[in-house]
Amino acid sequence: MTEHQGILTPEHIDYTLLKPEAGQRQIEEHCTRAIDYGFAAVCIFPQWVPLAKAILDGTPVKVCTVIGFPFGANTRMVKSAEAAEALEQGAAEIDMVINLGAIKSGDHRRASQEIETVAGLVRWAGEDKVLKVILETCLLDDSEKRDAARLAEAAGAHFVKTSTGFGPGGATVEDVRLLREAVFPQTRIKASGGIRGLDTALALIAAGADRLGTSAGVELMQSWRSSRGIL
Amino acid sequence: MTEHQGILTPEHIDYTLLKPEAGQRQIEEHCTRAIDYGFAAVCIFPQWVPLAKAILDGTPVKVCTVIGFPFGANTRMVKSAEAAEALEQGAAEIDMVINLGAIKSGDHRRASQEIETVAGLVRWAGEDKVLKVILETCLLDDSEKRDAARLAEAAGAHFVKTSTGFGPGGATVEDVRLLREAVFPQTRIKASGGIRGLDTALALIAAGADRLGTSAGVELMQSWRSSRGIL
Repeated sequence: MTEHQGILTPEHIDYTLLKPEAGQRQIEEHCTRAIDYGFAAVCIFPQWVPLAKAILDGTPVKVCTVIGFPFGANTRMVKSAEAAEALEQGAAEIDMVINLGAIKSGDHRRASQEIETVAGLVRWAGEDKVLKVILETCLLDDSEKRDAARLAEAAGAHFVKTSTGFGPGGATVEDVRLLREAVFPQTRIKASGGIRGLDTALALIAAGADRLGTSAGVELMQSWRSSRGIL
Repeated sequence: MTEHQGILTPEHIDYTLLKPEAGQRQIEEHCTRAIDYGFAAVCIFPQWVPLAKAILDGTPVKVCTVIGFPFGANTRMVKSAEAAEALEQGAAEIDMVINLGAIKSGDHRRASQEIETVAGLVRWAGEDKVLKVILETCLLDDSEKRDAARLAEAAGAHFVKTSTGFGPGGATVEDVRLLREAVFPQTRIKASGGIRGLDTALALIAAGADRLGTSAGVELMQSWRSSRGIL
């Protein structure tokens, strides 16, 4: 147990809308709610970055988007082009999926080079820009999780992130703990995938999650406030 | 009922392996089996196109890959870059996901322009190259399915394809029939998503499917042969 236990703030939350069938109006409403609640970021598909940037500009809410999502099975060129365009269009946070096929083939060099390339683009875009690398922990064994996390960190990731939310499993307390122990203290952890209840959210934070990726941000904040007697 | 009913050939099958955790060895085995069975194509992630091309070169089996997959929510630039690189690396068939968010927002122009751009790249790569547009029918109502199919056809698609296999539903006989009626006779239909049994496969072909996207190609051909008394 850490001093984090029992504390949920809007800054913990990457408010996520990754439904392919969501249209312009849903993205707009999502961004407006993110401003109302003061979430850390909205996490949306690349095609909506310009729209989200236009709405969120001048507010503290960042635009976060997903790269090589959700399978990480694109080429380095495509992941780089996608990240470069998103940064150019106003994304401040880049959540890229690690090359799972390369990890599973023992080709750490390929997985690493992709992250290094995107990390270079993120650094070049500004010191305040953030790179998160999604490991899709549900498809990895514990040894692979540690290797992938350290590889991502060494290649320039600011965060390691558990899940896409589209794999067979999401964030677990055990995985957050494992990742927290695997990486250096300055590397942050984002838990994501299936986070809907307040107890889960608080347990993930207590285990070491700095950020939660969830579409249930509003419900979580409401539960948190009512549990504290705040209306 | 048509004369197609009851006939399954290897040329009906795009033999599909779209698991993010599949490594180099699984891709190699997949391609080898495709050669053994004489399938129309292997359908794999973009990062494996060079490997598949090296194995399949000189055989009748084509390399097919997926673009903007599975959500279709990337930008036009990224879809184009991904298709261009895949064609350059040896892909002969491009299965791109339509921009569902644009369709749902009534922004047909945006959806159409993306397909036109990729269709231009495919034509430029050679007359034998093929563009299929995935509509993700499970997320569309019947009117949207027809609109999307006609929009894709008008923008230069050779095939309209039902599903990614990662949405809430896959290919249905009803959808194949609807698409067959919606588009011109020279536009072909690919059914995909959840096709595992021989009866389903034959019903989809009878309804008008020219191609089936399935990971169960080997099992389907074995069922077909044993149903015909062929060992």
